[in-house]
Amino acid sequence: MFFASDNWAGAHPDIAQSLVEATGGFAPAYGTSTLDKRVEKTFSEIFERDVAVFLVGTGTAANSLALASVNRPGGQVFCHREAHINVDECNAPEFFATGAKLVPVDGPAGKITPDALTAAIGRFPPDFVHGGQPMAVSITQATEAGTAYTLDEIAALSDVVKNAGMPLHMDGARFANALVHLGTSPAEMTWKRGVDILSFGGTKNGCWCAEALVLFDTSKAQQMHFLRKRSAQLFSKSRFIAAQFEAYFRDDLWLTLARHSNGMANRLANGFTTSDKARLAWPTGSNELFAIIRNDVLKTLREKGAAFYDWPAGPAVKATMRDDETLVRLVTSFATREADVDAFLSAL
Amino acid sequence: MFFASDNWAGAHPDIAQSLVEATGGFAPAYGTSTLDKRVEKTFSEIFERDVAVFLVGTGTAANSLALASVNRPGGQVFCHREAHINVDECNAPEFFATGAKLVPVDGPAGKITPDALTAAIGRFPPDFVHGGQPMAVSITQATEAGTAYTLDEIAALSDVVKNAGMPLHMDGARFANALVHLGTSPAEMTWKRGVDILSFGGTKNGCWCAEALVLFDTSKAQQMHFLRKRSAQLFSKSRFIAAQFEAYFRDDLWLTLARHSNGMANRLANGFTTSDKARLAWPTGSNELFAIIRNDVLKTLREKGAAFYDWPAGPAVKATMRDDETLVRLVTSFATREADVDAFLSAL
Amino acid sequence: MFFASDNWAGAHPDIAQSLVEATGGFAPAYGTSTLDKRVEKTFSEIFERDVAVFLVGTGTAANSLALASVNRPGGQVFCHREAHINVDECNAPEFFATGAKLVPVDGPAGKITPDALTAAIGRFPPDFVHGGQPMAVSITQATEAGTAYTLDEIAALSDVVKNAGMPLHMDGARFANALVHLGTSPAEMTWKRGVDILSFGGTKNGCWCAEALVLFDTSKAQQMHFLRKRSAQLFSKSRFIAAQFEAYFRDDLWLTLARHSNGMANRLANGFTTSDKARLAWPTGSNELFAIIRNDVLKTLREKGAAFYDWPAGPAVKATMRDDETLVRLVTSFATREADVDAFLSAL
Amino acid sequence: MFFASDNWAGAHPDIAQSLVEATGGFAPAYGTSTLDKRVEKTFSEIFERDVAVFLVGTGTAANSLALASVNRPGGQVFCHREAHINVDECNAPEFFATGAKLVPVDGPAGKITPDALTAAIGRFPPDFVHGGQPMAVSITQATEAGTAYTLDEIAALSDVVKNAGMPLHMDGARFANALVHLGTSPAEMTWKRGVDILSFGGTKNGCWCAEALVLFDTSKAQQMHFLRKRSAQLFSKSRFIAAQFEAYFRDDLWLTLARHSNGMANRLANGFTTSDKARLAWPTGSNELFAIIRNDVLKTLREKGAAFYDWPAGPAVKATMRDDETLVRLVTSFATREADVDAFLSAL
Repeated sequence: MFFASDNWAGAHPDIAQSLVEATGGFAPAYGTSTLDKRVEKTFSEIFERDVAVFLVGTGTAANSLALASVNRPGGQVFCHREAHINVDECNAPEFFATGAKLVPVDGPAGKITPDALTAAIGRFPPDFVHGGQPMAVSITQATEAGTAYTLDEIAALSDVVKNAGMPLHMDGARFANALVHLGTSPAEMTWKRGVDILSFGGTKNGCWCAEALVLFDTSKAQQMHFLRKRSAQLFSKSRFIAAQFEAYFRDDLWLTLARHSNGMANRLANGFTTSDKARLAWPTGSNELFAIIRNDVLKTLREKGAAFYDWPAGPAVKATMRDDETLVRLVTSFATREADVDAFLSAL
Repeated sequence: MFFASDNWAGAHPDIAQSLVEATGGFAPAYGTSTLDKRVEKTFSEIFERDVAVFLVGTGTAANSLALASVNRPGGQVFCHREAHINVDECNAPEFFATGAKLVPVDGPAGKITPDALTAAIGRFPPDFVHGGQPMAVSITQATEAGTAYTLDEIAALSDVVKNAGMPLHMDGARFANALVHLGTSPAEMTWKRGVDILSFGGTKNGCWCAEALVLFDTSKAQQMHFLRKRSAQLFSKSRFIAAQFEAYFRDDLWLTLARHSNGMANRLANGFTTSDKARLAWPTGSNELFAIIRNDVLKTLREKGAAFYDWPAGPAVKATMRDDETLVRLVTSFATREADVDAFLSAL
Repeated sequence: MFFASDNWAGAHPDIAQSLVEATGGFAPAYGTSTLDKRVEKTFSEIFERDVAVFLVGTGTAANSLALASVNRPGGQVFCHREAHINVDECNAPEFFATGAKLVPVDGPAGKITPDALTAAIGRFPPDFVHGGQPMAVSITQATEAGTAYTLDEIAALSDVVKNAGMPLHMDGARFANALVHLGTSPAEMTWKRGVDILSFGGTKNGCWCAEALVLFDTSKAQQMHFLRKRSAQLFSKSRFIAAQFEAYFRDDLWLTLARHSNGMANRLANGFTTSDKARLAWPTGSNELFAIIRNDVLKTLREKGAAFYDWPAGPAVKATMRDDETLVRLVTSFATREADVDAFLSAL
Repeated sequence: MFFASDNWAGAHPDIAQSLVEATGGFAPAYGTSTLDKRVEKTFSEIFERDVAVFLVGTGTAANSLALASVNRPGGQVFCHREAHINVDECNAPEFFATGAKLVPVDGPAGKITPDALTAAIGRFPPDFVHGGQPMAVSITQATEAGTAYTLDEIAALSDVVKNAGMPLHMDGARFANALVHLGTSPAEMTWKRGVDILSFGGTKNGCWCAEALVLFDTSKAQQMHFLRKRSAQLFSKSRFIAAQFEAYFRDDLWLTLARHSNGMANRLANGFTTSDKARLAWPTGSNELFAIIRNDVLKTLREKGAAFYDWPAGPAVKATMRDDETLVRLVTSFATREADVDAFLSAL
C-alpha cells in the first residue's frame, strides 16, 4: 500500500527493455545520436508543431532552466504558493535564474486565479525599479494539489500573462495525468493556450529518469544549449534518456500509464465517498488525492503498512476539519495495483 | 573502429542487468532507499575510511559541486590549462561556484608541476584584496592528456596545496583507468596523498549515468546535501544510479573494465612503436592516447571507418611535428574489441 | 513642505565641510588611509567593543553584503513582508546572496513578532533538503513603518533566532532615529541584544553617501574584505566616506540630527491629534509617520506644494479606513524646518 | 613625491565646490533630480549623440555592469591579460556577469592585437557547446600599461569583434588621459570606432567618486536600470555624483586636468631620457609610465620619500632588464606638482 509518492515506483518493463536495447554498440555522445534526434522528432509530432526539446535529468532542472532562460534583472516569477518550484526545490529556481524572486500567489485547490494573478502583478508597476520587474508566470499541470487546470482556465491565465508581457511556463511533472484527465491533446493543453515553455515529466509516470524541457518558440533554442550544458544537465550518454522516452511514447504507453494511475486514484476517491472515515479535501484531477482522515484511522492504516504523507492544510481546508483529523496526501502510480487500493479501503 | 570517446560506448551488460533488477517494487525516493545506503557503504569500504557520497548525474555536476562547496569570494581555482573544468564544461564550474575564476596552469603532458603551481599561487599574495584569494586546486586523474599522476607527484602537489591553505580536488572521470595503470588502491591515490574531494566517474567506464562526489571529510556533508538539491542533481529515483554502482563494484567489475580499456590503449600504443606512420606524443597512462600521424594516413584511416578527433597541439608537441602531421586523440573503452584495434593498426 | 523621503534632503553643512577638508593632499587608497582607520576606531568606541567596519556606498549594498556573508545553499532569510530588502531593493539581496530566498513574515506596524517568526522557521524542518534551510533573520530598526522595536522586543526575537542557529541582521538605515527614540545606546540596541551584523546608515540622516557594514564578530572580517571588493563596493577614495562619518560622529552630530528629525515627526503627529482631517495609522518611533487622510484634503495639501507618497495599507489598517481616505507616508529629515511642518498643519 | 596611484590624490577644488553647492535644498532621489538629468544631457552633447548614462560609484561597478548587461550562458569575455577586470577586481566581473569567464589575451605594452584576438576567439567555434561561446571583448583606454590605442587600432579590433558578433566594451578609467594624448574627440574614440559600452571614469582624474556607464545604444537602457539597482549601485542622493560631473565637464575642466597629469608624466619621461639610471619600458600615452630602474637607485628614491609600486615585468620586458633592475609604475594625477616631478628627477 505505497501511496507516499509516484517516485517510489520503479520503472515500467517496456522502458527497462528499451534501455537494455540501447546498451550495445557505439553512438555519438551529448545528445547527437540518431536515437536522440528521433525522440526529438517524436516530441514535435506529439505537440503538432516544431518544438525544441532538451533532455535533462530532473524535473527541478527542467523548471529551473525554464526560468533561467527568461531571466531579467530584478525578475519576479509568479507561481502558486504551494508550487513545487516555491517549496520543494531548495531554491534551485532562484539559483539557476540568478537574482530572481518567486512571488507566491494564493488560490484554492492549488490553482492560481486570474484575479489573484492580476493583483500580484499589479504590485510591480512598470519602471518602479526598486520593486523589480515581472519576469514569468509558472503554473503546474496537474497542480501540486492533484487538480488540473481546465483548458479555459489556462487560457484565462494566459491572457493575464500576455497582457503583462511575460512568458508562461508550465511545470508538467504530472503532465500526462492532467492530459488524460482532461481528455485533450498536448497541443491544446499547452501552446494553443499560450504556454511558451514546458517542463515535460516522464519520471513520475514510469520512467527511471526522463525529463524534457520543451520550447514552443524554437528560436529560443540556441541559448538553451549553452544553459543546459552550463547547468551540468547535458548527459554524455544522453541517448539513454532518449531510449526511455522512445518506449514511453510508443503505442501511447505514457497515456496508458497515466490512465492507470488516475484510475487508481479515482478508485480510492470513490471508496471515500462511501466511507464515513475519510473525505476528499477537493476533487482530484490526476493521480494525487488529498483526504481528511481521522487520526485514529490514520494510525490504524499505517500500522497495516500503508505509506503516505501528512500534508499541511491551508486555512480554507482547515476550517472544514475537526481537531482529531489530519489532511493526508495519497499518490498512485503506474505501478499501483487494484489490490493495494482495495486493501487500503478495507483497512479504512 | 570507434576511438572518438569512451562515452560513445553504451553500458556493460552487468550494469544493464542491475538496472533491470531495480525496476520492480517501491522504495523511498531521493537517495534514501536501502540500495542507496548500501552503495554509500561500499564506497567507504573501497576507500578504507568513512566517506560521504553524493550520487549525481554528470561529471560536470560532480566537479562543479566540488568547487561550489569550497567557494570563497574572489576565489581562484588552479587547474591545468587543458583541464576539463577549464575547457569543456561551458563555465559550469564558474556558474556553480558563483564568482570564482579558474587560473590555468601550464605543464607537460597534462600535468601540473609543483613549481608551476607554486608560481601561480604566488601571484595572489595574502590580503591583496584586488586580486582575489586562492580557493582550491583541481587535478585530473587520469589527466586530459591520458597520463596519470604518480603517487609521489600527487603528494608533491598536495604539499603545495596544503601550504597555501587550500583544499585539493581530484576530477576522477577516468579514476579507474589511472588506478589500474598505477596498480595502487583508491585510498593511496586520494586521501592518503592529500586529496580532499573526489569526482568519481563511472559513466566513461561502463555505466550509463553514474557519477559520485566523494568527500573525505564527512563533516562537510551536511551542506552538500543542500548544494546538490539546489543544483538539481538530487534524483528522485536515485536508486537507479546506485544500482549501476552496485554492479560496477561487484567482483571488481570496474577494475576489470578499466584494465580492458587500458589494455586496448596499450595494444594500440604498441602497434605504433613498430609503425613509421604514427608515434605517441607522450606515453599513455590510461585509456587515452595522443598520436602524431601523417595527414594522408589519417585520411585513409577515416575512409576505412575509424572515428577519432583531431586535437590541438601545444607548443612543445608542435615543435616535434612536421607540417604534414596532425595530433589526434584515440580513446578506448570497456567495449573496445581487440579486432577493432588490430583493424586500426592494419589500416595504418 | 518636502515629506516625500529623508533622502530628498541634501547634506548637513558640517559634513560638507569635512568633505572639503579631505579634498587636498594625498593618501593611500582603498580604505587604508589614516582617516579610514580613525573612523573605524570611532565605530568601536561608539559600540563599546571591537567591531569590524566596512564602508560602502548604499544601504542596499550593506544589507545585501550582510546576507551574502552568511549565505547557505537553499538559504531562507526571514524578514518582515514590508522589509526594504524584500520590496525595495530589486532583488539585490537575492543577487548578492546567490540562490537565497526571502521569506516574508507578517506582523503589525512593521514589526516581526516572535510567534510569527517561530511559525515561519518551523516550516523549514532540519534536514528537509527540498525546502532549503534557515539562514538568517533580518529586522529593520527603525522599521519601514516608522516604528522602533523596543530592546525587549529585539531580545525576544533574538532568542528565537539563536535557538534556530541563525545570525541576526539589523537593517539600520534609520538606526539613529530609533536610537534616540528609545533613548538607549548603540551597544544596547545591537550586540547586547544578540544582533550579529548591522547595516549602519548615515545617508538618510544628513550624509551624502555614507553607509557602513558593522560586524560584531571581528573574526568574520577577513572574508568580508573580499566580498566587498567583489561587489564593487570598495571605493578607491574611500576616505571621503570616512570624512563624512568623522563629521557625523563629532560632538554627537548624528544624534542631534536624528533628534531634530524625530522632533519634526512628533510635531506633525501632535498636529494630527488635534485635527479631525488626519489621524495616525499607528504611533511613530522615528522620523516617519503614516497617516490616514481624507482624499480631498490630500488634494489640497498637494496643491499647496506638499510632497509625500501614498502608501499601500495592509488589511488591518484598511479595516479602519473609510473609502474616501488614503494612507500616506510622511518623512522628516535633519533638514526639515519647523515652518514647513507648521505650514503643512495649517494647510491641513 | 606621490606616484603610487592617481587615486591617492583628493579632489579638485571646483568639484568640491560643486558638491558643496548641491548640499542645500531638497530634490527627488535615485537619479531623477534635475541635476541628474542635466548631467545626462551633457554626456549626450559630449558624445555627439543620444547616449544612455548610468551614474555608479566605482569603476569596477561600471565594468562589471557592462559585462553583466551582455551576459550569455557559457560566455567568454576577451580582454588583455593585464586588464584591470582580469587582475584587479577580485572577480567582480565574473560575479556580476554570473557564470562568465574572462579569456586573457596577450599583447605588447598592454594592447590586444587583432591577430591575437582573432586567434583567441577561434578557440571557441560556433555551436561547440562544451567550450562556451564568445560574449564580449573589453579593451582599456588608456591601457593598464599607460599606453593608448590609436583610433586605427580601435577600429581594427572593432572589426574583429563585430565579425564575431560581439559587443565591444571600453574600460575608460583613464578615458580623459587617452583622449588628450590622442588629441581626438570622445565620439571618435568610441562609437565612431565601434565601441558599444563605455565605463567612463572621473574618479582618477579629479573627482571623489564619479563613474558613469555609457550605452551608445539607448535601446539597451531599460534593463540597465534594473541591473544597476540590483547591483546596489543606484545611489539615493545620486545628484552628488551628478554634481561632480557637472563641475568636471564645465569649461572642459576634465580635459585640462588630464592634460596636466599627462604633462607631468611626460616631464618625468623626458627626465628619464637624459638619465642613465632609469629608462622607459615603453612610451607612455597617458599619465602612467613604466620605468626600469636600478635597485639601489630605487632604494634611494624611496628613502627620499617617493611613493610608487614595483610592477611585474612580462617576458619581453624582462629580457631587456638586468638582474639588479626592477620595473616600477609611476602615476601622475591632476594634483601632481612640477616641483614633485623635478624633486624626483633630482633624487634620481
